[in-house]
Amino acid sequence: MSVLTATPRIGDTRPGTTAPDDVVQMGGGYAFPDLLPDVSQIARNVASDFRTEALQYGPLFGLPDLRDAIVESVRADGVACGRDNILVLNGAKQALDLLLRVMVRPGDPVIVSHPTYLTALSIIRSHGAELIEVDLDHDGMKVDTLAQMLAARRSRGDSMPKLLFEVPDFHNPTGVTLSAARRQRLVELAEEFGFFILEDDPYRKLRFAGTGVPPIKSFDRSGRVIGAGTVSKIFAPGIRVGWANGDPDIIGRMAAAKSEGGCCPFTQRIVLEAMRTGLIDHHITELSEVMAAHLRAMCASIDRHLPDARYNVPNGGYFLWLELPADVSAAQVTLAASASGAAIFSGDLFFGTVPAQGFVRLCFATSTPERIDLGIRRIAEAIHRLRESPEKFVPGEATPLQRHTD
Amino acid sequence: MSVLTATPRIGDTRPGTTAPDDVVQMGGGYAFPDLLPDVSQIARNVASDFRTEALQYGPLFGLPDLRDAIVESVRADGVACGRDNILVLNGAKQALDLLLRVMVRPGDPVIVSHPTYLTALSIIRSHGAELIEVDLDHDGMKVDTLAQMLAARRSRGDSMPKLLFEVPDFHNPTGVTLSAARRQRLVELAEEFGFFILEDDPYRKLRFAGTGVPPIKSFDRSGRVIGAGTVSKIFAPGIRVGWANGDPDIIGRMAAAKSEGGCCPFTQRIVLEAMRTGLIDHHITELSEVMAAHLRAMCASIDRHLPDARYNVPNGGYFLWLELPADVSAAQVTLAASASGAAIFSGDLFFGTVPAQGFVRLCFATSTPERIDLGIRRIAEAIHRLRESPEKFVPGEATPLQRHTD
Repeated sequence: MSVLTATPRIGDTRPGTTAPDDVVQMGGGYAFPDLLPDVSQIARNVASDFRTEALQYGPLFGLPDLRDAIVESVRADGVACGRDNILVLNGAKQALDLLLRVMVRPGDPVIVSHPTYLTALSIIRSHGAELIEVDLDHDGMKVDTLAQMLAARRSRGDSMPKLLFEVPDFHNPTGVTLSAARRQRLVELAEEFGFFILEDDPYRKLRFAGTGVPPIKSFDRSGRVIGAGTVSKIFAPGIRVGWANGDPDIIGRMAAAKSEGGCCPFTQRIVLEAMRTGLIDHHITELSEVMAAHLRAMCASIDRHLPDARYNVPNGGYFLWLELPADVSAAQVTLAASASGAAIFSGDLFFGTVPAQGFVRLCFATSTPERIDLGIRRIAEAIHRLRESPEKFVPGEATPLQRHTD
Repeated sequence: MSVLTATPRIGDTRPGTTAPDDVVQMGGGYAFPDLLPDVSQIARNVASDFRTEALQYGPLFGLPDLRDAIVESVRADGVACGRDNILVLNGAKQALDLLLRVMVRPGDPVIVSHPTYLTALSIIRSHGAELIEVDLDHDGMKVDTLAQMLAARRSRGDSMPKLLFEVPDFHNPTGVTLSAARRQRLVELAEEFGFFILEDDPYRKLRFAGTGVPPIKSFDRSGRVIGAGTVSKIFAPGIRVGWANGDPDIIGRMAAAKSEGGCCPFTQRIVLEAMRTGLIDHHITELSEVMAAHLRAMCASIDRHLPDARYNVPNGGYFLWLELPADVSAAQVTLAASASGAAIFSGDLFFGTVPAQGFVRLCFATSTPERIDLGIRRIAEAIHRLRESPEKFVPGEATPLQRHTD
């Protein structure tokens, strides 16, 4: 892995901290700063009432009380679960890293959607795994295509995948949700071909429209699915508390591969108190309404200022996947938008191997509706400038963004 | 790695939480529960005054303000340092894990002292590295022996080590401090033979006697040394904030290998405020006095109740390395002491390959002087029982503790 991957990406400046106020943040999946929860009272109480727990080393698997609260939440979502199934993590990304550590060797194939969450790509690559990419449509990953690929690999005697990574609800970056039928079929394929599924579901509770689909894990009868959850998108990303939900044997192997001395019991207890007092549920309700309003503002602004761009309205989550007009490239638009004061992510970043051309990912979570409208206008201006002076942006030229995905 | 490594060890129950009150905790290096700091006011202020920073995703390398404060602390210890040298971590152990990730492949040799910190062994093993173990004496690792081993390896054409791990101050488990001359020689060897040194220094500021020795890093002119620090032993282990201090290229590669979404900015800001307000320095002063009293109590109790055991009094840190009478085994004493209500760690755990016989590690940090005295008496009783009924404890029998180190 090159040191370059640690360099901040365009669009990866932090809202409310180091970013110039004038840049409209639609790049990284940052929380809306105006709606971060007030945990001051809870934090003070935890530090005083739970001092010997919160400031001491915590149990390797997480605070038992928090694991039980997570069990309750997982069960309420239709998934059979007990305390032994739960491992507390420093956010959901750690689930992917630990699973790769315990079950994937360099060269082993790992299945992802095409496109997929860019940081998942980076983590999978850091383990030297080979990527098997499966296209998606409005119902999520094309599971029949995957079945054909797997059968073909097996008949050729190719190495078979150990792990599949997917964001089934309000997929990152495309916003689509995997249908129930495909979830069930995916579990059948995992059993038939002997791989595990990491169901990374940070956005699940941020639904603005439509009805929920049962988790992939709810179809699992043989321990092939590991669920990953986090409070990052539904509460506060600065509180680094996530969890994995899986077969006790796998959970135990993941725990053994943890190396940071157990997760922070102080923040774990804050999350637990926020769950118990109803603060998180209240926050989810409020946040969903606000996020839905952000998305409506983004769609209205695109319709007005970028009428020749195309998109599908996601039913939830943080992201809108925008197909640009055919005469401009995503990498060029991303750079030009950045120069105009709109931080977005080029779609190229989300493809493991050959990128589909002409997409950008827009995060509608972080900025206000007014600022989102400003950002979309800036993208429109950037595209206008590109069309006026195409010589400034040579198609196919390696941009800093493209280099990051090498 | 076996799932067994995740099973709690004897002696690894948590003080003040799940452990029965009656067990005297001298096993794991837990903080003294009676002296955990009061961070309630700081935590409340951080949650309210720094809400948009503390609850948002943080920068990959850590909060710039915290990195600057760490720079100041490192410089005060005689080490040249700038912000680009500092990476904030979830505790110091993560430094070892990340360094192994970025510079060690399975089969590569890694140098450790013999014995060494048991969790370091577990982390190194999880990366499939080969262990090169170097004996130590009262001046720490025998660096001349290491030099001979390295020269012999090179002349045989063996693979050469990539990394050396050491706890130079109040070594875990033996309590010895590496001499200044050996520190300098170690850096010369690193340059000559092309390996890196991880200087893991959690106990450095907990000195009760003698004068400080310059950090290994202070002798480094070629970027061969990476320092690792943490607030776990000097403030609160529940606040999972540590750091690495190294060459910006290595620090960048370590950052790129992090997968947990950046360290928690909420706890980072708490640590920073505790540094700024002097709370940590004050705590170190108070803690050093209390730890020194704990150690004195332990030594007095050993002298009284275990007159045929031998030890050297460490000048600081958390641990006393006790050599048992020759007629009992460390694993058996550990089990028998556990049955008597004293949690200790068998010395066998701290050796990578062939263990030296007859040592146990006693942590004097966690329990009060009175409880330490009770614990030592329980160990003495356990040894008495073993001598009365040796048939109950078959020498050489695999104990649960020994199995953990497989």
